[in-house]
Amino acid sequence: MDIDIRAIRKIIKTALKEDIGNGDVTANSIIPADTTARGIITAKSQGIIAGLDIAMEVFRILDPNSVFVKLVPEGHAVYERQDIAKVEGLARALLSGERTALNFLQRLSGIATLTAKYVQAASGYKTKIIDTRKTTPGLRLLEKYAVRVGGGHNHRFGLYDAVLIKDNHISVAGGITQAVARARAFIPHTMKIEVEVETIEQIQEAMESRADIIMLDNMDLEGMAEAVKLINGKALVEASGGIKLENVALVAATGVDLISAGALTNSAMPLDISMSLTLI
Amino acid sequence: MDIDIRAIRKIIKTALKEDIGNGDVTANSIIPADTTARGIITAKSQGIIAGLDIAMEVFRILDPNSVFVKLVPEGHAVYERQDIAKVEGLARALLSGERTALNFLQRLSGIATLTAKYVQAASGYKTKIIDTRKTTPGLRLLEKYAVRVGGGHNHRFGLYDAVLIKDNHISVAGGITQAVARARAFIPHTMKIEVEVETIEQIQEAMESRADIIMLDNMDLEGMAEAVKLINGKALVEASGGIKLENVALVAATGVDLISAGALTNSAMPLDISMSLTLI
Amino acid sequence: MDIDIRAIRKIIKTALKEDIGNGDVTANSIIPADTTARGIITAKSQGIIAGLDIAMEVFRILDPNSVFVKLVPEGHAVYERQDIAKVEGLARALLSGERTALNFLQRLSGIATLTAKYVQAASGYKTKIIDTRKTTPGLRLLEKYAVRVGGGHNHRFGLYDAVLIKDNHISVAGGITQAVARARAFIPHTMKIEVEVETIEQIQEAMESRADIIMLDNMDLEGMAEAVKLINGKALVEASGGIKLENVALVAATGVDLISAGALTNSAMPLDISMSLTLI
Amino acid sequence: MDIDIRAIRKIIKTALKEDIGNGDVTANSIIPADTTARGIITAKSQGIIAGLDIAMEVFRILDPNSVFVKLVPEGHAVYERQDIAKVEGLARALLSGERTALNFLQRLSGIATLTAKYVQAASGYKTKIIDTRKTTPGLRLLEKYAVRVGGGHNHRFGLYDAVLIKDNHISVAGGITQAVARARAFIPHTMKIEVEVETIEQIQEAMESRADIIMLDNMDLEGMAEAVKLINGKALVEASGGIKLENVALVAATGVDLISAGALTNSAMPLDISMSLTLI
Amino acid sequence: MDIDIRAIRKIIKTALKEDIGNGDVTANSIIPADTTARGIITAKSQGIIAGLDIAMEVFRILDPNSVFVKLVPEGHAVYERQDIAKVEGLARALLSGERTALNFLQRLSGIATLTAKYVQAASGYKTKIIDTRKTTPGLRLLEKYAVRVGGGHNHRFGLYDAVLIKDNHISVAGGITQAVARARAFIPHTMKIEVEVETIEQIQEAMESRADIIMLDNMDLEGMAEAVKLINGKALVEASGGIKLENVALVAATGVDLISAGALTNSAMPLDISMSLTLI
Amino acid sequence: MDIDIRAIRKIIKTALKEDIGNGDVTANSIIPADTTARGIITAKSQGIIAGLDIAMEVFRILDPNSVFVKLVPEGHAVYERQDIAKVEGLARALLSGERTALNFLQRLSGIATLTAKYVQAASGYKTKIIDTRKTTPGLRLLEKYAVRVGGGHNHRFGLYDAVLIKDNHISVAGGITQAVARARAFIPHTMKIEVEVETIEQIQEAMESRADIIMLDNMDLEGMAEAVKLINGKALVEASGGIKLENVALVAATGVDLISAGALTNSAMPLDISMSLTLI
Repeated sequence: MDIDIRAIRKIIKTALKEDIGNGDVTANSIIPADTTARGIITAKSQGIIAGLDIAMEVFRILDPNSVFVKLVPEGHAVYERQDIAKVEGLARALLSGERTALNFLQRLSGIATLTAKYVQAASGYKTKIIDTRKTTPGLRLLEKYAVRVGGGHNHRFGLYDAVLIKDNHISVAGGITQAVARARAFIPHTMKIEVEVETIEQIQEAMESRADIIMLDNMDLEGMAEAVKLINGKALVEASGGIKLENVALVAATGVDLISAGALTNSAMPLDISMSLTLI
Repeated sequence: MDIDIRAIRKIIKTALKEDIGNGDVTANSIIPADTTARGIITAKSQGIIAGLDIAMEVFRILDPNSVFVKLVPEGHAVYERQDIAKVEGLARALLSGERTALNFLQRLSGIATLTAKYVQAASGYKTKIIDTRKTTPGLRLLEKYAVRVGGGHNHRFGLYDAVLIKDNHISVAGGITQAVARARAFIPHTMKIEVEVETIEQIQEAMESRADIIMLDNMDLEGMAEAVKLINGKALVEASGGIKLENVALVAATGVDLISAGALTNSAMPLDISMSLTLI
Repeated sequence: MDIDIRAIRKIIKTALKEDIGNGDVTANSIIPADTTARGIITAKSQGIIAGLDIAMEVFRILDPNSVFVKLVPEGHAVYERQDIAKVEGLARALLSGERTALNFLQRLSGIATLTAKYVQAASGYKTKIIDTRKTTPGLRLLEKYAVRVGGGHNHRFGLYDAVLIKDNHISVAGGITQAVARARAFIPHTMKIEVEVETIEQIQEAMESRADIIMLDNMDLEGMAEAVKLINGKALVEASGGIKLENVALVAATGVDLISAGALTNSAMPLDISMSLTLI
Repeated sequence: MDIDIRAIRKIIKTALKEDIGNGDVTANSIIPADTTARGIITAKSQGIIAGLDIAMEVFRILDPNSVFVKLVPEGHAVYERQDIAKVEGLARALLSGERTALNFLQRLSGIATLTAKYVQAASGYKTKIIDTRKTTPGLRLLEKYAVRVGGGHNHRFGLYDAVLIKDNHISVAGGITQAVARARAFIPHTMKIEVEVETIEQIQEAMESRADIIMLDNMDLEGMAEAVKLINGKALVEASGGIKLENVALVAATGVDLISAGALTNSAMPLDISMSLTLI
Repeated sequence: MDIDIRAIRKIIKTALKEDIGNGDVTANSIIPADTTARGIITAKSQGIIAGLDIAMEVFRILDPNSVFVKLVPEGHAVYERQDIAKVEGLARALLSGERTALNFLQRLSGIATLTAKYVQAASGYKTKIIDTRKTTPGLRLLEKYAVRVGGGHNHRFGLYDAVLIKDNHISVAGGITQAVARARAFIPHTMKIEVEVETIEQIQEAMESRADIIMLDNMDLEGMAEAVKLINGKALVEASGGIKLENVALVAATGVDLISAGALTNSAMPLDISMSLTLI
Repeated sequence: MDIDIRAIRKIIKTALKEDIGNGDVTANSIIPADTTARGIITAKSQGIIAGLDIAMEVFRILDPNSVFVKLVPEGHAVYERQDIAKVEGLARALLSGERTALNFLQRLSGIATLTAKYVQAASGYKTKIIDTRKTTPGLRLLEKYAVRVGGGHNHRFGLYDAVLIKDNHISVAGGITQAVARARAFIPHTMKIEVEVETIEQIQEAMESRADIIMLDNMDLEGMAEAVKLINGKALVEASGGIKLENVALVAATGVDLISAGALTNSAMPLDISMSLTLI
């Protein structure tokens, strides 16, 4: 996993607290404290697996001595009914953690799976598939990680690490030129400036103000192709707005550098994953 | 809203921190601190609106003097392109909060909308549609609220507030009878005990142990009807497992009291909602 | 211990922080960092021991390598001057943790001891002794655990996990029937509804509304006996209000299922427990 | 109140969270959100009232617009059945906060009441009644405040703000002289050093090492009188160990400056206080 | 202030907690709770003022009704003994908050003052003065703000918002080309890549890999001038390493775009600022 | 280290979070997760080393298996270019933690070094060098520790652990006598009272009220000598106000017990310390 488990341990603990609260009354009353068990985690449909380290951490928090073995590597494309991981430890820990571990795994694998479909659809072109800020509140770091697992790339992480100038900023500033200038005077020199445009005139103004990235907002395919030609490598070109799996190849064919899709994170169906438990 | 905004303010603050971090570099560099604006929030497809108070709180945190007006009541069924709320306040607050407010609104309204479809499908029967623990890590309280807005009801909130005895518990305890007895000896008298069963024999054992609720796990329609007849009002009957919008009416027709569906919370598509901003 | 130490570690850490603050200036200035010691924890009067795992955790937080040995099992009835535990570790850790460990042990053992007296007084009857919400702010989970150690049972954990309808709720709703109906429409099907009643008429209304539990509020013994006969097993019956150790047997003899007493948690005297330290 | 409400707001919020959790299911389902009510808080036995500001803060957190009126001042000696405060606000807030407010009020008033008895018993002597570190984990600041309300004084707040040298420290250091010297070299010049002694020889050594305070540990009355004469005002003299309400006057008569009693905080019975609610 | 006070309120509260702890025993014992006072904050030497909003927030936290008036705007160059702010409110709040407010003001004004000297020294050149990550642990956001107030600009905020490739990264990757490629494949397209170089060959490799920024590490003046000529506007050029106030103009004269100096934040002397209090 | 690493772990974690945020994008993209390295930490100028345990903890948090070896003991006087510590562990951990570790080490060693100079200047006299509350917000515990490492002593830790009566307190109370009396009635008997005075008359009043410590505020050398003679050991005497390294010996020669200097903590230059990394 290319993210540090420490950075997201708080999210995992919050999820466990939300589910377990004062204690799992069923497991605590019925299962003896020292009973051990083995769980097998199985993908019930095909897809890309993401979040194995999260699942491992869920069980490690509940039972520091539990042993979690990945049966496929992170990012693996699994077939239907393929076992993906095995965990052994206290039965109470496995029972109490099962739902939380699966909730993470299903969602992240779902995002990785959908992203991989977009990436596949755009294969053959240089275009990168990127995510947006349309992520689940509280889970952005994880969901952006899942996009990377699926072969996609990330847009900015939030409002704090890059400038993205939209129509309202432009109208307050009095034009793209002024908006870019104000931003450039304020931000670290390490940060890029992206401008959202709708017309050819705006593209020209954005280029003159030396924007690093130009986002084409809801343009048609011809407009995009014309924009790519006009910009001619002097800035990165991002296509955005209403791009679906069905038309992503057509958009990629226009020559844009990047295609962003909110659907990657907010419309991915969970991958069907379950866990079966045996006492040992 | 039938939940207390204080109980979920931490979730909202976490979401804002995740998105804004050290500050919105675009708004802070381009928009003067005292510029004000008006935002109109519009549903772009039809559905049930849930989460207006969350959106209001997002803007209130960023600008305590902002004014948020609901144009439809929570739970309203909106038509395509209907305006649902108006907010006025500092332009920086509106720009920095827009995405977070919409991320909440879209997800919760999506859940309410899908729930309403299940409820509608089961209308005419006494059966209640209920959710599960297949919720987004960190957002359970909100997602269960959205289910209620959509006309559904809630299952237990977590592992701590009700007993749900499954096959593993039964096998450790040595039978349903023993498992129920152990649980009953441990829990407050205010808590109910639910038992998950797969066979008629298990139903009989569950009834003899005076379980309050019997969950029929992945039974076929005939099995469910038989179970309902057998239980005969002596316990609540919950149908669970693979129930989709397509077959919910058929399941309801078997006479079960409750139908639980993980899809309500983990497979709802976000309702398309956007915000347009005007400087004032 | 039937509660998870993780669930209460925050309480323990808060207690240690409260006592140790920036550091134990006496121990840190006088005791070398690597001096080790052995502490013997002794009950100075007879009673039921509760909280050994809490004491162990106190020392483990201050010295992860400390070794804590229970000389009696949790819930044991000890005689005067019986040693109950031994701990070895860094002398600074033992000195700095002693007071906090004892404060927990004394309080929890006091509650377990008093509860055991109530349980003993009601022995011979089927009646369960249960606690209330009259617990020390911040320590409810621990105090309810101590009640269980003493042989008692728990009432609901808070306002969130069961419905308890009192006179004010009834008068706002316009009657028990309406109040129960409103609650039932709102809560998960896994949650029970308890109604507090003062008269026979109210009992009848509560039964007609199918309340799961009926609480007899400050009734006299005859009233209780009559109520039990009337309810006749169709709901659990809880006696509440001013029940002391002196009259608990009389109340149990009326046939009520449950007797709740706030005194268990808010009037228990601490069990006298001390720790003696030897350098090793 | 001579403590800052901000310093203890976290304790109050923790208590409310513990009781209310995800929400008061009874009030939220039955009481309309805008119903208002008036609560009268009444002492049902005589005693000293402490904690009115805490109760006020409980309701203010749940309803920022609630109005709380003290009918007696903090520290007042009330007679049986005297009304002590009135609060008006949202009925849900009053119902949800009632138990928590009373739990604080009863405990703190109980401590103030018991302290006042000790102070009264020692009246006529210069001796101050002081508390110890035998406080409820998490509530020390509040309980020490209640001791002051009852006319007592405080010992150190924790291990961090004064030196108290006991037998173990002395034996590690190789004598009182060495222990005091080590402490003095380490601590700020603003901090005092107290030494616990059991014999006349130890008193002399403590005086020679210029200890600021000498604690007589479990001495008999004659020993205390002799010690007071020997010390002769050159250090403060504290009597400690097994001092009860019955013998506090005799101890005070020996001339000690301070009498410390763990009972003030760990053996005070709660003052019986209740709240009655009327809808308005 | 161009940073949001909400983003740094936690820092201010931590500072107040650190200083006030359980309460200001001097003020709380001597000053009546309702005594009010006026404080005048005065710069005792000349410099640039930064942090007025922080000081205001300190007092607002302690007394929400306090009124703080800036007598000079943030960033103003004050003369010796010039009054810079006035605050009126509860005397306890002013006394308890004075030191914390001044500690912030002195440090931030010290940084702004030193930065302004660097900026002045480099005036006449296009070169921007920028800070580094050599900031006080916990105060980076504030110290980087103070650099901006003094006329400087910011380098990246941390390890998370820009890539800075140093010798160790290069040697692991097997060369600048490979290191840049690995980074580019991983990061959002909105983030820039900076490479630290020591030789002309490295500069050429960095340019070929299309690094956005090239940092000249401890080069002499001639080397810098040569590097600027070679790079020729194709990347930003940052001079770094041992640049002092004395030689900053010489470095700026080489034509570098940016000069970074750790001294701005870790070697600035506090500006001498005091507060005088009058009771009102 | 005479402070508990647990007490300051939160400060270290906050510092790491501030610098690393969502992750070190440079190290995470370029350095393989299992690459290991060795870092050598070297003092580049002479001084007193303080903070080695903090640096060790920084790396331990990032890599629990890292091994940190101190090459000199804490408090050692190092010569220019002397190696002071070695750390081996994951290369990512060493790269991501380097700056934070050095920021702590440089600041604390700088304070210890400056303190040692003051102590050296006052050597030959009994006078202790002490710090003040002019510390960096959030780092007081660490900075006061560094003062001790440098041979200095600590003043009170905050407003909560000792009384320091200044002119405003005196004027509100109506005189030193009244102010001291009010404080004495309120505080624990374990706490001392210090009074700040400017005149001989005030010294006499302070002595009559039996203040434990008398602070001479900005007195000239003759005044201090006279004060020392007058007080004659009946209270500790602290000299304060504008005392620099140049005149500290002269002040010590007046016979004061304590000299406090804000410069120790707010004007110490960081000691130049760097870390070089080799892959292993």
